[in-house]
Amino acid sequence: MTSLSHIPEVRGLSDRRHLVRIPQEVDVPLTPRVRQIIDTADFRRLTHISQLGLVSLVYPAANHTRFEHSLGVYRLALLYLAQLAHDERFAAAIHPADAELLIVAALVHDLGHWPFCHPIEDMHLADVPRHELFANSFLLEGEIADALRDDWGIQPRDVVSLLSEKPRDARSRILHSILSGPIDVDKTDYLMRDSLHAGVPYGRNFDQQRLISSLCLNEAGDGLAITEKGRTAAELMVFARYVMFSEVYWHHAVRAGTAMLQRAFYLLHRELDLDALFRLTEHPMILALQKSAGDGPAAELLSGLFGPKRQLYKRLAQYSYFQEREIYERLARRPYPWLVACAEEFSTVLSRRLGSRVAPHEVLIDAPPVEREVEFDVEVYFPKENCYRPLGEVSPVVHTLAREQFDDYVKRVRVIVHPRLIEPLQAIDDLAPLIGQAIDRAERASAS
Amino acid sequence: MTSLSHIPEVRGLSDRRHLVRIPQEVDVPLTPRVRQIIDTADFRRLTHISQLGLVSLVYPAANHTRFEHSLGVYRLALLYLAQLAHDERFAAAIHPADAELLIVAALVHDLGHWPFCHPIEDMHLADVPRHELFANSFLLEGEIADALRDDWGIQPRDVVSLLSEKPRDARSRILHSILSGPIDVDKTDYLMRDSLHAGVPYGRNFDQQRLISSLCLNEAGDGLAITEKGRTAAELMVFARYVMFSEVYWHHAVRAGTAMLQRAFYLLHRELDLDALFRLTEHPMILALQKSAGDGPAAELLSGLFGPKRQLYKRLAQYSYFQEREIYERLARRPYPWLVACAEEFSTVLSRRLGSRVAPHEVLIDAPPVEREVEFDVEVYFPKENCYRPLGEVSPVVHTLAREQFDDYVKRVRVIVHPRLIEPLQAIDDLAPLIGQAIDRAERASAS
Amino acid sequence: MTSLSHIPEVRGLSDRRHLVRIPQEVDVPLTPRVRQIIDTADFRRLTHISQLGLVSLVYPAANHTRFEHSLGVYRLALLYLAQLAHDERFAAAIHPADAELLIVAALVHDLGHWPFCHPIEDMHLADVPRHELFANSFLLEGEIADALRDDWGIQPRDVVSLLSEKPRDARSRILHSILSGPIDVDKTDYLMRDSLHAGVPYGRNFDQQRLISSLCLNEAGDGLAITEKGRTAAELMVFARYVMFSEVYWHHAVRAGTAMLQRAFYLLHRELDLDALFRLTEHPMILALQKSAGDGPAAELLSGLFGPKRQLYKRLAQYSYFQEREIYERLARRPYPWLVACAEEFSTVLSRRLGSRVAPHEVLIDAPPVEREVEFDVEVYFPKENCYRPLGEVSPVVHTLAREQFDDYVKRVRVIVHPRLIEPLQAIDDLAPLIGQAIDRAERASAS
Amino acid sequence: MTSLSHIPEVRGLSDRRHLVRIPQEVDVPLTPRVRQIIDTADFRRLTHISQLGLVSLVYPAANHTRFEHSLGVYRLALLYLAQLAHDERFAAAIHPADAELLIVAALVHDLGHWPFCHPIEDMHLADVPRHELFANSFLLEGEIADALRDDWGIQPRDVVSLLSEKPRDARSRILHSILSGPIDVDKTDYLMRDSLHAGVPYGRNFDQQRLISSLCLNEAGDGLAITEKGRTAAELMVFARYVMFSEVYWHHAVRAGTAMLQRAFYLLHRELDLDALFRLTEHPMILALQKSAGDGPAAELLSGLFGPKRQLYKRLAQYSYFQEREIYERLARRPYPWLVACAEEFSTVLSRRLGSRVAPHEVLIDAPPVEREVEFDVEVYFPKENCYRPLGEVSPVVHTLAREQFDDYVKRVRVIVHPRLIEPLQAIDDLAPLIGQAIDRAERASAS
Repeated sequence: MTSLSHIPEVRGLSDRRHLVRIPQEVDVPLTPRVRQIIDTADFRRLTHISQLGLVSLVYPAANHTRFEHSLGVYRLALLYLAQLAHDERFAAAIHPADAELLIVAALVHDLGHWPFCHPIEDMHLADVPRHELFANSFLLEGEIADALRDDWGIQPRDVVSLLSEKPRDARSRILHSILSGPIDVDKTDYLMRDSLHAGVPYGRNFDQQRLISSLCLNEAGDGLAITEKGRTAAELMVFARYVMFSEVYWHHAVRAGTAMLQRAFYLLHRELDLDALFRLTEHPMILALQKSAGDGPAAELLSGLFGPKRQLYKRLAQYSYFQEREIYERLARRPYPWLVACAEEFSTVLSRRLGSRVAPHEVLIDAPPVEREVEFDVEVYFPKENCYRPLGEVSPVVHTLAREQFDDYVKRVRVIVHPRLIEPLQAIDDLAPLIGQAIDRAERASAS
Repeated sequence: MTSLSHIPEVRGLSDRRHLVRIPQEVDVPLTPRVRQIIDTADFRRLTHISQLGLVSLVYPAANHTRFEHSLGVYRLALLYLAQLAHDERFAAAIHPADAELLIVAALVHDLGHWPFCHPIEDMHLADVPRHELFANSFLLEGEIADALRDDWGIQPRDVVSLLSEKPRDARSRILHSILSGPIDVDKTDYLMRDSLHAGVPYGRNFDQQRLISSLCLNEAGDGLAITEKGRTAAELMVFARYVMFSEVYWHHAVRAGTAMLQRAFYLLHRELDLDALFRLTEHPMILALQKSAGDGPAAELLSGLFGPKRQLYKRLAQYSYFQEREIYERLARRPYPWLVACAEEFSTVLSRRLGSRVAPHEVLIDAPPVEREVEFDVEVYFPKENCYRPLGEVSPVVHTLAREQFDDYVKRVRVIVHPRLIEPLQAIDDLAPLIGQAIDRAERASAS
Repeated sequence: MTSLSHIPEVRGLSDRRHLVRIPQEVDVPLTPRVRQIIDTADFRRLTHISQLGLVSLVYPAANHTRFEHSLGVYRLALLYLAQLAHDERFAAAIHPADAELLIVAALVHDLGHWPFCHPIEDMHLADVPRHELFANSFLLEGEIADALRDDWGIQPRDVVSLLSEKPRDARSRILHSILSGPIDVDKTDYLMRDSLHAGVPYGRNFDQQRLISSLCLNEAGDGLAITEKGRTAAELMVFARYVMFSEVYWHHAVRAGTAMLQRAFYLLHRELDLDALFRLTEHPMILALQKSAGDGPAAELLSGLFGPKRQLYKRLAQYSYFQEREIYERLARRPYPWLVACAEEFSTVLSRRLGSRVAPHEVLIDAPPVEREVEFDVEVYFPKENCYRPLGEVSPVVHTLAREQFDDYVKRVRVIVHPRLIEPLQAIDDLAPLIGQAIDRAERASAS
Repeated sequence: MTSLSHIPEVRGLSDRRHLVRIPQEVDVPLTPRVRQIIDTADFRRLTHISQLGLVSLVYPAANHTRFEHSLGVYRLALLYLAQLAHDERFAAAIHPADAELLIVAALVHDLGHWPFCHPIEDMHLADVPRHELFANSFLLEGEIADALRDDWGIQPRDVVSLLSEKPRDARSRILHSILSGPIDVDKTDYLMRDSLHAGVPYGRNFDQQRLISSLCLNEAGDGLAITEKGRTAAELMVFARYVMFSEVYWHHAVRAGTAMLQRAFYLLHRELDLDALFRLTEHPMILALQKSAGDGPAAELLSGLFGPKRQLYKRLAQYSYFQEREIYERLARRPYPWLVACAEEFSTVLSRRLGSRVAPHEVLIDAPPVEREVEFDVEVYFPKENCYRPLGEVSPVVHTLAREQFDDYVKRVRVIVHPRLIEPLQAIDDLAPLIGQAIDRAERASAS
């Protein structure tokens, strides 16, 4: 235990010398070498990148930054370490140098984020990097790289490797599971923080203290697990995440804005210098997109989102797993370019039906992306019986969330249209077959 | 809307003239006619009956009273009414006189509770009344009855009827569903209040505001339902209740105490004047039990619970739905007297095995009671499609909780023994077959 | 730092192995040797002694126990130690053995409390011991004494000495200042805890974290002080205490109940076996008082407080420092027996005026007790200038609270009478001169 | 009561139909006519103007917007009205049309704010308008003016008049006192909201519920007052404001940034088109300032604040009312241009002393501005005696805060210098006389 708890940042939790305050009434210990990193220009970018992007269209106070979140995740990494230092197997596997690598990685884990990163990544366009890889450009050289080498004795390459590569040994898998997994420091922070700023209670309920005090290693000794006493806390965390998706991240008006941004970006992306664009903070990036849009169709979409007067597209129809499942299944988890083609076919179908032109960019289809969100494979340790079982096995609720409810019930397929069209289109009483036609045509086109 | 919102207590929510404070920072409006009721001796009894009884063995701060809870439930009834007053169908069905009946019923709903009421009721002994019926003795005559008639213009019989009889018309079913059902005022208060006093976050998370603002009537117009916007709040409430059972109400040490009290009561109940006993507050009732126990076997059980030095029995073995299911299924949901017989058989089996006497009262079997907890049949109204669906249908998680997890995963079968026995008995490596023998013998005995 | 942070209880803050939960969502680490103490019968008494006594007449949820508070104070002592371990001067002065003495003392600091202890002590009757001294009977021999010697290696006498004697050296003065002083662990816990249970926000605001992280030693090196960064937290704590006195502890109806209890006790105390009485928990103590009262005048007072139907005396008149100061100054800070004599004189005066008998026990005078509450002499350390200044000097607000507002503005003189008298007596328009007469007579009597 | 409570927005508090969520878990009712206003471009500007400006240099999460705050203030106006509707004198004086005017005024009260408005206003430069007046340009014509006339039946001129002119009759004085005064809706919101986002507890403690439930009219019937039961809540609010100034708004590093911005703006203001500048949101305004600065001295100041790498000036010396009061009194409450002249003189003095050039813009003097913050003249109504007294009279603490502590103890005079200078300048041991010289020279210059 001794050595891990002597890492200056871990000690900072208790000596409380240099602190910065973030909500909710939490003190984050800053050592000089941490301050060295967060004061760099590359890290301070994050003070102008909001955590939730378009969510503020619906929850107007959700303006918190990736900077605040990064401080929160870093602090949680310290709390996880302070706790795991008491686990003998952990203390044997993870040396202070490993723990310091973890601390740094937690701090910089979002460094590659650009504004509106998630909606743009979700489109899986070939020329868009994963933000984890994009982070490398900030990590491998420059001020942060210098600080890592000089103040931390850490090779920048090791941070990059931990954050963006598949872990290859037990030690790396342990560290990786703290940064990314069902009960990682990232989710533990964002569920709480996003709830707080949105003004909702959903993600603030999962008994963080108890979860942390139950942390241990899994049976194989290569990943984070929890003891039995943390089981309900973990269930609550899984459930909280479901509710946050349902009520906040995938709120229908948030999705309308997301669909508008995605289409605009899609229309523009070939003309953009993405590497330069993704280095910008929020306001300059919006200016750059608007400039690139000129007065083409993307301009109208961007103006609805970011113009002086907000004008969101409206939901024309909605399909879900348990409601008109056929259309749902034909549209969910399809490649984004195909969805655009399909929406454009639909605009043609609708133009014909209305007898007046519906522009291609006036019809958007929003659908669950290719990957599923679900990650619940954490083990639960039962000390009395000295055995480990998967959480999904001892918790039917988690099993259900994982298998059914999460993606299928939260993420709907939605047809979203320009507000001028909502009235005439709602008058059409056979929308479903018309969409069917558009899907047929898009499928034929993509097949050919 | 007008008339319901003019009921003095509902107005008290906003005019804030006579208030009493309860946690968490909540003002309860008291009108003179409410004060008339709560100042009676029968109602003030509740200031000396704790809400959670033996839970304070594990959560030492959980000492809140039925009095506090009753004020909380009464206030929620006002909030529900203030909201439902805006629902046209509700306002048409429920007249101010009905609403006043509801308000009074919410206030006195726990009047029939005696100390340790739930564990004692769970045994389903023939001579123990349901507390709802026991309340009649306080309601039908005496000061409260007078206050109902004189200050409220309410017939005591109508309160009794609403609280303890099956509702017969739509109006009664609506009122009844507000008092007792998956999203009733009772659960909404106790989940929050029990969490607060126990010091856990579990029941404080379900977005009470949102649940309340989504209240409406069901399709048939005879019960409480919610609109779509309250769906996740309702799911959270169901989930919160599961976690509270798992971590608090059915905590293994709480169950050990419960099993001790039940056995002591079972041993004594034929000698007790139950009607007099159940009118006592907590401390005098304990004295009465101890007096009745003399120095018989119940005395040791009571002394372990309430004596100057606490000595809880200890968990020898535990069986659940997903772990040694066979034993679980042979013991769950059996009549209490049979369980006692079985435990006594087991004490004989163990005496023989140990070669020294195990007294019958030194072995207890705690098992899920006959009734299941689950009540999730609330309808969700989807305004866009103008249709109602059961919550369990649109929420796989709720369905899973209802069907599988709630009773089967939370409520275990446990063998609990006197602490002096735990060491020798844990050394026995074939406990399961020995229990099997005891069950066989108990079954044969009860069959004959 | 090393050695203090290795004390098992201090380590328990971070290794989180054996925890008990108390509000507000706080984990208290329990080591076996702590459990040894709190499981004794003498300590478990505190589970049946409420922290706030008669406050629950007004704030019905304020039923928390001295047991819960003791756990809270013990935990704060650990937090204070964990912080002060980083202060070099503290670490040099206080060895682990001293710190363990402090931990134990914090845990048992309220062991000598009996039910309604403060109102009874405030009367300063010759035969009533200070509760700190009364604790000795539990500490010097018995189970706790054994546990101290055997499990802690601590002489019970040292605990007694720390808790109830004037400290004689720097080391003792430091420990003493943590247990008793303007920013001690006792106040820091009770302000928060009493607020929480009463349902008010007042005592929950003073940024406990910041206060703790600013702890240091004073200039002389013999007491607790704070650094400049804790100044506003300390001001807030002083202010919070003022508001708690104003709104909760000295609420007029709480004082009415207090005056009733004091008079009843005063009438009975010569007949009571105080040593036996003060060993009882709340309910048995009330029974003992009622038994002693028979059907004498004390019986009516006790019945109004504890009988099935509560009947509090009512406030007839109120005098304060800034309002009818003359009467205020003649009655404040007088010996309790003299106040009783004065109230009895007043009952005679009133009998004559009304032309019908007012019994002596129907008129009570409640007045600020002899000692003042104020203790604000904490030093503030300014690191930039390397100097220490008294808080009252750098905070005019604290100075004002200390000098003027606390006792003089919060604690009023009140004449409290039986409810049957309130109407006729309120009709008298020259009450003030009549009280003046009673005071004159009482002064003449006591002078003679 | 009836008519005020039938205003659609006030009803929205209870019918809960169209709500938007803001922290802390608060629902704001939006009627169509409110949405009409907040969706205008001029109002949506506020989504890009942060509430606390440079405070986020120290409290990184304090990024909340004037938009969120405006929603909070609007909601509080509804709560105040819903409460005051129960006060007969209020209901007689304020008709529904007045109340609607108040609601609108609360909503738009910050419409004239531009980024960094307070620091810029505090300089009192002749060409800078008060933001209340600047709001007129948004209110008197354009979309908001149209909405006021068409949807609300309100003359824009009346809103302007209420917000920016001295009220002339009792009715206006009442409305004005709700918008601006010691317990106005603005402070009640911002103390809570700024605390929440900064992550500190200070402004979240003043028992908003109790304050609101104590609202009434003053003796003259022309302003907001409180009843006795709100006294401690009001004291807490005054105290909370003091602490927020001490720890947040006037934190020394926040003041360093403020002084940098003020000097930069001062250097540039004659060249700027202020009317255009003040219509911009935060990011464009910073760009405009940077463009105007070119590579002159203001550029360095702006780059330290807003450049990719933050470089704040550092505190060289600090003077306060109770510490080197002479210098404090010579510098506090002087006109800003004179302070600049004095700082420039000081740079000359320092250049000479160091023997190397200190540029004029490298030395800043930050001092309390001309106006004092204090406004505590609220009346307290004592129903028992049917009299009104000023809060300051019944609360020595408030009196002390008002007279002494607020401005004098919180707001220091500070000399702030470029970080490159901090080391050599700290080595000078007779700084005070040197500053004295600079002051003398500045005074002679301004006298001549």
